[in-house]
Amino acid sequence: MRFFSDNAAAAHPKVLEAIQRSNRLDTAYDGDEWSLALDRAFSELFEREVKALWVSTGTAANCLALAALCPPYRGILCHKDAHIEVDEAGAPGFFTGGAKLMLLDGAGAKVVPETVESAIGLIRKDVHQVQPAALSITNATEYGLVYRMAELAALGEVARKHGLGFHMDGARFANAVVTTGESPADLTWRAGVDALSFGFVKNGGLNAECLVLFKTDLADEVTVRRKRAGHLSSKGRMLAAQILALLEDDLWLENARASNAAAQALAKAAPDRLVYPVEANEVFLRVSPGEAESLRAKGFDFYDWGPGEIRLVTSWDQGGEPVQILAEAIRAL
Amino acid sequence: MRFFSDNAAAAHPKVLEAIQRSNRLDTAYDGDEWSLALDRAFSELFEREVKALWVSTGTAANCLALAALCPPYRGILCHKDAHIEVDEAGAPGFFTGGAKLMLLDGAGAKVVPETVESAIGLIRKDVHQVQPAALSITNATEYGLVYRMAELAALGEVARKHGLGFHMDGARFANAVVTTGESPADLTWRAGVDALSFGFVKNGGLNAECLVLFKTDLADEVTVRRKRAGHLSSKGRMLAAQILALLEDDLWLENARASNAAAQALAKAAPDRLVYPVEANEVFLRVSPGEAESLRAKGFDFYDWGPGEIRLVTSWDQGGEPVQILAEAIRAL
Amino acid sequence: MRFFSDNAAAAHPKVLEAIQRSNRLDTAYDGDEWSLALDRAFSELFEREVKALWVSTGTAANCLALAALCPPYRGILCHKDAHIEVDEAGAPGFFTGGAKLMLLDGAGAKVVPETVESAIGLIRKDVHQVQPAALSITNATEYGLVYRMAELAALGEVARKHGLGFHMDGARFANAVVTTGESPADLTWRAGVDALSFGFVKNGGLNAECLVLFKTDLADEVTVRRKRAGHLSSKGRMLAAQILALLEDDLWLENARASNAAAQALAKAAPDRLVYPVEANEVFLRVSPGEAESLRAKGFDFYDWGPGEIRLVTSWDQGGEPVQILAEAIRAL
Amino acid sequence: MRFFSDNAAAAHPKVLEAIQRSNRLDTAYDGDEWSLALDRAFSELFEREVKALWVSTGTAANCLALAALCPPYRGILCHKDAHIEVDEAGAPGFFTGGAKLMLLDGAGAKVVPETVESAIGLIRKDVHQVQPAALSITNATEYGLVYRMAELAALGEVARKHGLGFHMDGARFANAVVTTGESPADLTWRAGVDALSFGFVKNGGLNAECLVLFKTDLADEVTVRRKRAGHLSSKGRMLAAQILALLEDDLWLENARASNAAAQALAKAAPDRLVYPVEANEVFLRVSPGEAESLRAKGFDFYDWGPGEIRLVTSWDQGGEPVQILAEAIRAL
Repeated sequence: MRFFSDNAAAAHPKVLEAIQRSNRLDTAYDGDEWSLALDRAFSELFEREVKALWVSTGTAANCLALAALCPPYRGILCHKDAHIEVDEAGAPGFFTGGAKLMLLDGAGAKVVPETVESAIGLIRKDVHQVQPAALSITNATEYGLVYRMAELAALGEVARKHGLGFHMDGARFANAVVTTGESPADLTWRAGVDALSFGFVKNGGLNAECLVLFKTDLADEVTVRRKRAGHLSSKGRMLAAQILALLEDDLWLENARASNAAAQALAKAAPDRLVYPVEANEVFLRVSPGEAESLRAKGFDFYDWGPGEIRLVTSWDQGGEPVQILAEAIRAL
Repeated sequence: MRFFSDNAAAAHPKVLEAIQRSNRLDTAYDGDEWSLALDRAFSELFEREVKALWVSTGTAANCLALAALCPPYRGILCHKDAHIEVDEAGAPGFFTGGAKLMLLDGAGAKVVPETVESAIGLIRKDVHQVQPAALSITNATEYGLVYRMAELAALGEVARKHGLGFHMDGARFANAVVTTGESPADLTWRAGVDALSFGFVKNGGLNAECLVLFKTDLADEVTVRRKRAGHLSSKGRMLAAQILALLEDDLWLENARASNAAAQALAKAAPDRLVYPVEANEVFLRVSPGEAESLRAKGFDFYDWGPGEIRLVTSWDQGGEPVQILAEAIRAL
Repeated sequence: MRFFSDNAAAAHPKVLEAIQRSNRLDTAYDGDEWSLALDRAFSELFEREVKALWVSTGTAANCLALAALCPPYRGILCHKDAHIEVDEAGAPGFFTGGAKLMLLDGAGAKVVPETVESAIGLIRKDVHQVQPAALSITNATEYGLVYRMAELAALGEVARKHGLGFHMDGARFANAVVTTGESPADLTWRAGVDALSFGFVKNGGLNAECLVLFKTDLADEVTVRRKRAGHLSSKGRMLAAQILALLEDDLWLENARASNAAAQALAKAAPDRLVYPVEANEVFLRVSPGEAESLRAKGFDFYDWGPGEIRLVTSWDQGGEPVQILAEAIRAL
Repeated sequence: MRFFSDNAAAAHPKVLEAIQRSNRLDTAYDGDEWSLALDRAFSELFEREVKALWVSTGTAANCLALAALCPPYRGILCHKDAHIEVDEAGAPGFFTGGAKLMLLDGAGAKVVPETVESAIGLIRKDVHQVQPAALSITNATEYGLVYRMAELAALGEVARKHGLGFHMDGARFANAVVTTGESPADLTWRAGVDALSFGFVKNGGLNAECLVLFKTDLADEVTVRRKRAGHLSSKGRMLAAQILALLEDDLWLENARASNAAAQALAKAAPDRLVYPVEANEVFLRVSPGEAESLRAKGFDFYDWGPGEIRLVTSWDQGGEPVQILAEAIRAL
């Protein structure tokens, strides 16, 4: 029973069915009917006109957005534990042509306006120091916390004030929508977000993520950059079809509800051990090495996360028995 | 009936089945059993130890290889009609960090040793001119010609003599193997090839290509570069599974035989119109604009390729009726 | 007696005196009085507001301009014999982050509107092919020809029509101004030029060139890129002082007149041997290997330039005896 | 009386004389007699074979070295206050093609082996996290402290153990040599340093720095990168001549002794106010805003350096009166 990451879970059966249905010759790249349907589908979801481009990984979505928002000679403010900083092998440096990640502190990998202001305040406004051009946050964060509408609006205000592009890594955006009960629009462009990496792979998709551009005039550039980065799949219809399948009948929300619920079940099993409040589908627990060992001995798989802490991540398909068994095992520690 | 590109064809049913079978939680990225099986599978196919990495597009395969073979400050010799030059949106410049493509002439997009030598001879050996570090060819070429073992060995000798890395874009490698009847080993590393972009997407795959490294000490660097370019899919097992399905029972050869045969059927319908000999699955025909129009009016879809020429590309699944109908239509022109 | 390049000539005594005079502590980088005087000096010269930044080499001037005019994912149209293509070690690829040089033909390294239009016409307007963003020409050209006002205006019109930035490599701009008798303004921004690499090193300077921006809103970006490329000298006043010394009392024109006159003296010695009309300070002659040998035996130093051709370049300080002696020697061949 | 930076001081008269003497036509770029003499001059100074290349700025020297020591997809360990991190506008990202600076803590901008080990220990050895390829330190540091031979050897040992290239930013290397009394060899390659940015501009030079390569097989690559970055001045002899003039009769040491002595004079004026020990030519003092104001009112120019601290930097030509006057003024606070 594996709880090490949602990104390794199975794809949802409806996703595979959609791939199967799209498996006939159509126009190559992104000229097919499925790909062409994305803009409209996401425009409806977000209650305004957006541009939506499939890519195959979250790293690609994040870094294509960042390259469009930040020239090579400027910087991107982000949390020091952000995925783009610690888990993408320097991809932002590659895609942007050497822009600098400017690291912020914050509990639970959350960024607050004050730390952004403070970081900017420390930068001399001269040619010797790198000036920031963008702000990137993750919702839900790498520690499973969510930003609510008002928090995002405050960050968006800081970004606007300093002329920063505003990117959201939404690898677990679905979980944040479910937890907050706030609308996709309120959690993004209404708060000033320019580009969203809308994650599907961790939420039932196979290998399709969606880069949603609220600043729609970035679309031409991003489309070229996607090709140039080797991310323009010739049978792109099979990526688009995955995404459409997950949007249909709000399957993406259903899946996120399931993984969130599974995380809550684990959280309830050990409220005193929680390192962070559980607001999405990640559970960080304080357990001794011996306890971790005993859980592993029972067949559970997960990451250690610093000394005396473990990370459990739940997936859309773990709603039932595996989680109950793990919850019991945690209670029994 | 579409003949504009093999890259838009359907995936083979066995490929989708393989994806289905691999659709269960396993280790993320490339640590799963399918991904781990690639090295061995390709080592057997190539009769020596190789490293094999899945990627999702041919552009990614080509450019990851080129970045490993050529530093930013040097150049890559290739045909002026090579895919990397004319159809990848400058991706080699992006992946290599600004290395230069150094263009060669040659009938049918084929490179011969003399043109390589001649191009190198024109470069002053000083710090002001970019010196080449790699040679890249395409087999089968962009015009559907194939290199045979002896031709490749001669190119490999030139590459060796000048210290050039040797890359082969094998988007249609399968077609070349079928046509020549020569072994994968003879067509690659025995001729001095260091890295092969082994194409599957045009030959029954969905979105998996394989970068095969004969210079195996490049594997670590390429693995990092793949991640850094956003090409390390978290459910990589579904890419590996596609490739393994196409290798199994030589399905890749069976598919290539079908598309080659379809091209031959078209070629035989109009031997006097052929612009190039048909050696793979591409047929370039001299047809007047009016003739092209009449073919389109009958429901055939294809690209114009310069004035008075059209390109027809056949796919693995067009072995039967569509090709017969098109062949008849061409005969009737 | 050396005629291999004007870029190796001595600096003018007044340039060294200016360095000497500026040799006292002042504000570092470009905040000193000399650097601050550049904008005004060049604005007067060009009869409009410009931004003027010193750099230490022509390659830096060219490539900083190109990086500001062309994003990484687009291309720069230039002559196939342009300095940026053949003699800058791939610097445009480095500074732009991988943009592509798109090569044009043309006698004497001159670009005409028709070849630009023709090249653009051959590019498919899709995401697979690199689209041009800039046009770069050299005046005087690498073969010593000059563009006149009307020719430049026609090129500027093409650039405007296709939305291309327009850069002029003016390593020998002074020679072109002297030859044409047209104003610096007419030869640049009035013809649509956005940025000029204004050469001084080949014309009496020591190591200061000037990047003149007519599109003044590029200045902030270029200033940062200059620092980022390691070109913001801390004692920049000594670069600015050189440039100001050459502008003073039109010393730059006086120097160019001298080198142009020297070239004319050589041209007159062998009108039948000229490969190109002599319009600046470069003389290309048809001479047999034996003749070239005999000139070298007499102590003249120059480059062979293809089979049966040599290049002679005159400098600001070669107006007198050396040129007379060489002219005699040529006549005597 | 300006104490804001040694990089804005005058050039030494002998440096200008050397430029004057080299001001005659010679081979362009770096083929002249002065440039060719550098390797031997530095090989003697360092008691072993080295390669020595002039460049015009410290940023260029640092970043050319780093680009040769670290591929785009890896990282460079350095102090968080290192010049390459805080004062070079992201130049390392540009020159390396996006490599990552990995920041270390340490009092007085000094790096110790334990922090290097600790930083490396925190990096997962997988493809998702950037792995370090180089270590860069500054001697004397940005806060005017020096590394002694034994400290450097310990760092070199760590670098060797982890396979890291070892770069030293020696913008004030001369000051460190004077202070420690240790040999240039002991302070560099004998401790494992691969490349040294040997500073001259802050120590009497005009605009010439020297990149000294102990790992001599990097020279070819660095030479190409220098050209490609627009740093191959055509009259390079005038850069080489500056450096040779400063090496002659140990003028570089004489100058550094003078600036060090000036700093000591200031330090003695306020031993209780020192933020760091004064080991080179920088003096950081605790002074209240009012006190700073009063010093400025007396005509002294310097930078504030955080709240309640100022930075005074002495130059080679400030040995006499200005320093005495400032020392008195500090005493009188």
